[in-house]
Amino acid sequence: MQTIKYPDKKKLALILKRPFINDTELEKRVSLILNDVRLNGNKAVQKYALKFDNVKLENLLVSTEEIKEAKKVISKDLKKAIKIACNNITKFHASQKEKVKKIETTSGVICWRKSVGIERVGLYVPGGSAPLFSTVLMLGIPAFLAGCSEIILCTPSDKNGKINSAILFAADLVGIKKIYKIGGVQAIAAMAYGTQTISKVYKVYGPGNRYVTAAKQLISKDGVAIDMPAGPSEVAVLTDASAKADFVAADLLSQAEHGADSQVILVSTSEKLIEKVKLEIAIQINSLPRKEIAIGALNNSKAILVKNIRDGIDVINEYAPEHLIISCKNADRLAEKIINAGSVFLGNYTPESAGDYASGTNHTLPTNGYARSYSGVSLDSFVRKITFQKISKQGLKNIGKSVEIMAEAEQLAGHKNAVNIRLKKMNKSK
Amino acid sequence: MQTIKYPDKKKLALILKRPFINDTELEKRVSLILNDVRLNGNKAVQKYALKFDNVKLENLLVSTEEIKEAKKVISKDLKKAIKIACNNITKFHASQKEKVKKIETTSGVICWRKSVGIERVGLYVPGGSAPLFSTVLMLGIPAFLAGCSEIILCTPSDKNGKINSAILFAADLVGIKKIYKIGGVQAIAAMAYGTQTISKVYKVYGPGNRYVTAAKQLISKDGVAIDMPAGPSEVAVLTDASAKADFVAADLLSQAEHGADSQVILVSTSEKLIEKVKLEIAIQINSLPRKEIAIGALNNSKAILVKNIRDGIDVINEYAPEHLIISCKNADRLAEKIINAGSVFLGNYTPESAGDYASGTNHTLPTNGYARSYSGVSLDSFVRKITFQKISKQGLKNIGKSVEIMAEAEQLAGHKNAVNIRLKKMNKSK
Repeated sequence: MQTIKYPDKKKLALILKRPFINDTELEKRVSLILNDVRLNGNKAVQKYALKFDNVKLENLLVSTEEIKEAKKVISKDLKKAIKIACNNITKFHASQKEKVKKIETTSGVICWRKSVGIERVGLYVPGGSAPLFSTVLMLGIPAFLAGCSEIILCTPSDKNGKINSAILFAADLVGIKKIYKIGGVQAIAAMAYGTQTISKVYKVYGPGNRYVTAAKQLISKDGVAIDMPAGPSEVAVLTDASAKADFVAADLLSQAEHGADSQVILVSTSEKLIEKVKLEIAIQINSLPRKEIAIGALNNSKAILVKNIRDGIDVINEYAPEHLIISCKNADRLAEKIINAGSVFLGNYTPESAGDYASGTNHTLPTNGYARSYSGVSLDSFVRKITFQKISKQGLKNIGKSVEIMAEAEQLAGHKNAVNIRLKKMNKSK
Repeated sequence: MQTIKYPDKKKLALILKRPFINDTELEKRVSLILNDVRLNGNKAVQKYALKFDNVKLENLLVSTEEIKEAKKVISKDLKKAIKIACNNITKFHASQKEKVKKIETTSGVICWRKSVGIERVGLYVPGGSAPLFSTVLMLGIPAFLAGCSEIILCTPSDKNGKINSAILFAADLVGIKKIYKIGGVQAIAAMAYGTQTISKVYKVYGPGNRYVTAAKQLISKDGVAIDMPAGPSEVAVLTDASAKADFVAADLLSQAEHGADSQVILVSTSEKLIEKVKLEIAIQINSLPRKEIAIGALNNSKAILVKNIRDGIDVINEYAPEHLIISCKNADRLAEKIINAGSVFLGNYTPESAGDYASGTNHTLPTNGYARSYSGVSLDSFVRKITFQKISKQGLKNIGKSVEIMAEAEQLAGHKNAVNIRLKKMNKSK
């Protein structure tokens, strides 16, 4: 972890630059798999499962027996924990429902929006090094709250064709009926284009490695929406002398263990704290099973010493972190100054892990600086807000002239006619 | 306009299929221009202005003198019309502001979202056959309401380096200070990557031709967000015998005049009405200056006769039109059944033109079936909803155990530690 003292504001963007990966070779390979699945459906899916995951898949769909079995295997404690998380996530996401507000913009002209769930959505949950059943909750719960009518889940099986039990339990708890044993690029392709077994969806959600991310970007060019572009996970911790070095170290390590390409940034007004945190990291890292991964991530990471907290806020807003922990005296006041971040954690007793699992907020968040323009996943991600309007005869009289004049100025006579023919009829029928 | 009677539900998707355009050659050409502007900035912008728009640009930025001049040129009536539209659009979009709701998901665990304007946004308004000053209102008003701090507008000049006066008037009315005389792919590139004159933005909005659309898709792969993918404009009109044939014909023509690639779909339970509408179109089309364009669009268009209104709704939801006009007896009740549409117009006195200009709703809407997964532009398009959480010591005690258990089950020991180290300290300090 490199320490940078009092960086020049003009150089901030350069200092905080994330590694840029543009792999056109990878994109080409991904594109070939997408096309193969589009043309050959299940056969292609099974071929790639054998090739990449070393598994011979007979049935793609998880059976009810497999779900029953999973429920038996899971410990009582884990079941309880998942249910508590499920309740909190449900409460927070349910609060995001928007009531229909009818607005009379001009007398007789009534406009409103209505949130309607996207009909068919596909959720992707990666396998890989850790079974991310928490992601099943983070995507499945808002999908159901939004009223999506067809919700499917793809996740890779192990070599024996089995899905992790906690993933199955979480999916069942949320209410997902169609779980397919498909991973990687072939899963994204199957959801985007459909196969003999899987029906095409309109939007695909969920994290994944670089291949999955490239696949999501490519299907979005083909008209299938995606939740957001994804990059390696990251956290920034903003601290003053009041922060607890051991807590901060634990927070940085909890991010660093995600992957060697994860980024952690420590920003502090206190040089002493930075030194203490570094010492604490050196101690705590030894107890981590994923120590090697964490070391990799820390090598890319930076501690930035700033003159005052205002400069610290500038560093944060320039970096636009996925997660931001504010461990400062006036955390609440400072939070008001944050312009660019995915999710913000306030105070010494709000670790990122809480939001990753159980506090209620979503953990699918914009990485790689995308927090400058994207929000994290929420109920909004699963609905469209359709606008409606109803205009009375009097209403059209009130705004009709304006429409006619503007349409004429834009040289769109047909637009003008559509109003004019109605106004004329009203005048005649008087 | 081809009439299709009582289509088989299974064949609906095929019947309603939009022409698919996938021009990789175009994409390559667009990509070269993007790269050139990225590397050579203003010089490249000026080069392409000369090449494509036949204009030698000295100053890219519109001067205050030019705006003053524009204000003089515009008629009083047009000024008044634009102001009325501006008021209605402001009212409707201001109503979309979301209040912060703090949710206590578990005792001591408080989560909320805050809408924060995207700092830097770029609005594109095409030139071409009609000066779309209404789009300046539709993009500029929500950008200001959202609190975006840097709002720039790019629009092509004519051969003499002049921008249409109504565009300048609307931009000035809305409050946009930086208007650049740049159009086409080079405008999208300048906003996405920045030049010596133009600072890079985080999100690009606005309609455009196939080149502009391809440019937007390519910059989105480079991490610059876009409002939505765009295709040719379209309207569907759902009718029963109560609809007025002359109104419906005018509505269909108002869409058809947009471009030869526009689509208009008439769905009706009444064969008589379809025949009447066709007759009315044949009459009304003669008065349109853009008659040739409208004829082109009508050649791609369809009238679909359905057995009952329920089947009509199915056709609409399958097609997912950008605009939908419901000219039926029970328009309000039928509106409840609409799942896929961008913007819906209810009753005989609510023409699409009203929403295109002045009722208050936004006219930047999802085309090409994207209404299945995308919303139109709204205040939401200009903000990110950042999540915040604050957990008290007691709050962490309440959910900490769940987090620990879930983190352990996901094999993320560092995530568990971040909670555990805090819980331990609390126990010690007792």
